[in-house]
Amino acid sequence: MCFYDDIKLKCLEANLGIKKHSLAIFTFGNVSVIDRERNVFAIKPSGVPYDELNIEKIVVLDLEGNIIEGFLNPSSDTKTHIYLYNKWSEINSICHTHSTFAVGWAQSLLNVPIYGTTHADHLTKDIPCTSPMDDSLIKGNYELNTGVQIVNHFKKNKLNPKEVQMCLVGSHGPFTWGKDEIESVYNSVVLEEICKMAFITKKIKPEVKRIKKTLIDKHYKRKHGKDSYYGQ
Amino acid sequence: MCFYDDIKLKCLEANLGIKKHSLAIFTFGNVSVIDRERNVFAIKPSGVPYDELNIEKIVVLDLEGNIIEGFLNPSSDTKTHIYLYNKWSEINSICHTHSTFAVGWAQSLLNVPIYGTTHADHLTKDIPCTSPMDDSLIKGNYELNTGVQIVNHFKKNKLNPKEVQMCLVGSHGPFTWGKDEIESVYNSVVLEEICKMAFITKKIKPEVKRIKKTLIDKHYKRKHGKDSYYGQ
Amino acid sequence: MCFYDDIKLKCLEANLGIKKHSLAIFTFGNVSVIDRERNVFAIKPSGVPYDELNIEKIVVLDLEGNIIEGFLNPSSDTKTHIYLYNKWSEINSICHTHSTFAVGWAQSLLNVPIYGTTHADHLTKDIPCTSPMDDSLIKGNYELNTGVQIVNHFKKNKLNPKEVQMCLVGSHGPFTWGKDEIESVYNSVVLEEICKMAFITKKIKPEVKRIKKTLIDKHYKRKHGKDSYYGQ
Amino acid sequence: MCFYDDIKLKCLEANLGIKKHSLAIFTFGNVSVIDRERNVFAIKPSGVPYDELNIEKIVVLDLEGNIIEGFLNPSSDTKTHIYLYNKWSEINSICHTHSTFAVGWAQSLLNVPIYGTTHADHLTKDIPCTSPMDDSLIKGNYELNTGVQIVNHFKKNKLNPKEVQMCLVGSHGPFTWGKDEIESVYNSVVLEEICKMAFITKKIKPEVKRIKKTLIDKHYKRKHGKDSYYGQ
Repeated sequence: MCFYDDIKLKCLEANLGIKKHSLAIFTFGNVSVIDRERNVFAIKPSGVPYDELNIEKIVVLDLEGNIIEGFLNPSSDTKTHIYLYNKWSEINSICHTHSTFAVGWAQSLLNVPIYGTTHADHLTKDIPCTSPMDDSLIKGNYELNTGVQIVNHFKKNKLNPKEVQMCLVGSHGPFTWGKDEIESVYNSVVLEEICKMAFITKKIKPEVKRIKKTLIDKHYKRKHGKDSYYGQ
Repeated sequence: MCFYDDIKLKCLEANLGIKKHSLAIFTFGNVSVIDRERNVFAIKPSGVPYDELNIEKIVVLDLEGNIIEGFLNPSSDTKTHIYLYNKWSEINSICHTHSTFAVGWAQSLLNVPIYGTTHADHLTKDIPCTSPMDDSLIKGNYELNTGVQIVNHFKKNKLNPKEVQMCLVGSHGPFTWGKDEIESVYNSVVLEEICKMAFITKKIKPEVKRIKKTLIDKHYKRKHGKDSYYGQ
Repeated sequence: MCFYDDIKLKCLEANLGIKKHSLAIFTFGNVSVIDRERNVFAIKPSGVPYDELNIEKIVVLDLEGNIIEGFLNPSSDTKTHIYLYNKWSEINSICHTHSTFAVGWAQSLLNVPIYGTTHADHLTKDIPCTSPMDDSLIKGNYELNTGVQIVNHFKKNKLNPKEVQMCLVGSHGPFTWGKDEIESVYNSVVLEEICKMAFITKKIKPEVKRIKKTLIDKHYKRKHGKDSYYGQ
Repeated sequence: MCFYDDIKLKCLEANLGIKKHSLAIFTFGNVSVIDRERNVFAIKPSGVPYDELNIEKIVVLDLEGNIIEGFLNPSSDTKTHIYLYNKWSEINSICHTHSTFAVGWAQSLLNVPIYGTTHADHLTKDIPCTSPMDDSLIKGNYELNTGVQIVNHFKKNKLNPKEVQMCLVGSHGPFTWGKDEIESVYNSVVLEEICKMAFITKKIKPEVKRIKKTLIDKHYKRKHGKDSYYGQ
């Protein structure tokens, strides 16, 4: 057993979850898992189909982007992961997919309005969608700047990444995160489902309004915080 | 064999039906089954994935909400189930899901209009959607008040829960019920299909009208009542 | 081996095709197969799930509706099948489903316009949708009158059931037929796919027009008639 | 082992990919693979279901359309393949399907606008949709003229088939190609996904605009050309 097998195994299983939950075709998604004690993270190799993944192919890097273990190129989105891990110490896994309805909303450059309690069970705000990046950022360190775009959007809109564990990068697609890799993939599945429900709602009734704050707070607090009573 | 194994087993199989019929992701749905003789009901434990359910994990409660058997917390929606069982003695199972198109309609706060015979095979009315709860009800005994909301909506609109075995809770999602757990889950599947068909119909022809009473009655009575002739 | 096992077996396999191709939930569809020499047909029993079907449960009737073989009630739609078999001697199997997009169009009471070559590969006309039945017909021999509705719609619109092997019964759903049970089920699958494609097309471009006659004829004649050259 | 078993095997596996990826029902799609050294190509036989395909049933032809090996009629679309192989020496496999959303766009006679980075990862232009063929071309050598229609559309719009590896034939459906049969089928899957995403985006926000050139170029060049850094 190698030194980093624990996060590599978690990373492998989490990436297989992308396929299991139909969150991306081919290789269009990646999950990473960080070990905060050792400051290294494991991530999917770039362009490798989920069916061909195994623990040896997972790449381990430090937070400067140096490869610590692994013989393959890490995901081309690696720098986005690094930026988020550096800025948000409370998150330990990141999941990026191209799930269909989430991409549909991201391409529309619209936040996903909080239309119901399935949404409020998970966050009290609209699902944020960043605006398109400035040309200079695109032409610069693009993947790192994707992380900058997300973090700045959260700062500007006073969003807390511990509560709002998902973001649509405008014109691109969804990133989700969590305290571990179970939660980051879970959030990607939930995001896709909320995006599909919101699409249907908007098409049934274009003038639909957001639900009110009391209902949002009730549902969110059932599942989160000291007075939560959902689960075991 | 334990004392309540009959309803626990029925409850287990019914909850597995939520996954089998893709009526909810993760743990977003629950079925209960009541034993009217003993006045106890079995319900899914809160937050447990369907794949991890077994008969030991099913929780048995009385109609005051006391746990009679089981070591896990019951579904957070348990009080909604209790309220409905107390008010409607004719129902013996309740199924709550977050199926996608049913939630879409619930979030739009619209009744699902009776557009065709698939709908009329099951009920003669629009599928009711309750209005959002008052703030005081939300802040109070929320899950019990969800039951109040459903029962009051039925009273106010003179709906009979023996005929209309489904309700959309506005901004939330569907509840269905029936004479047994086979029927309550069946009704959740049928509801989702009717909601999808109604969505498609409305998008093809926004000005579509409800079908006429003669056709509704014909189809409903083929399957229900003393002159029914569907089935064996 | 019983006397009617040939058509019963064909009927069984064709009904299993409804489930295989996801053309109906639960028991919401039925296929029949006729033996034109003996003037008897085999049909699905009413209300029996596809998973529980076997050859013994298939019902054999004559064209007056007398049960010749079988211990179960035949499909409640049996008289529709009988009427069509009596009127259209060229068809040897009928398939009725509640497939989702076909029902969506049927509920909108609109013909499905011929928007592309997938449609023209199978028929040169819009897919017909009958108008709702008169009250007297609904209150009368309803299932037989469903057959009357279809046949009259074809007569009035000069449609040939040998070419147009499908019909949407307005507010209800699709019926398809063919020279054998392979073809009748095939037509139900094709109908659902054409209905879904037409829905998408209409939503992308509401003002979309039908394709022109030269293109329709070219595609139809590639697959049908003496100059066809599709297949082996 | 026969002389052409290499391309026949590739062709077989690629055609099975149509079914695996749900790109067509029944027999509504075909893939071919060319051997540029010997100037022969292997193609699916006409009208044979994917489940019944085997290596013996694959047909090998030369670029004049003579059958070199095989006892079945080749795909009725064979001449389209031949025309494209003759005109575009850089492509070695062609895949034609009737995938649902791609056909939806083809039937709307609209290019698929470049709404996001999933699209830009694969091409920098809108996905082209040819206009309907003139009557004389339809009545003439139709399948060959389908190839003419594609090639002329690319010439007129200055599209490079090495970059834009997909085309919607107006009112009909998609053709994709690539350097090998892995790529041509891959492109059909990607095309369907982009078409679905674009449909959702357009329905969420009808006034949505194309993404800007800097973002298109960034994503395209991540995956293509000398400075690409995606994959291994």
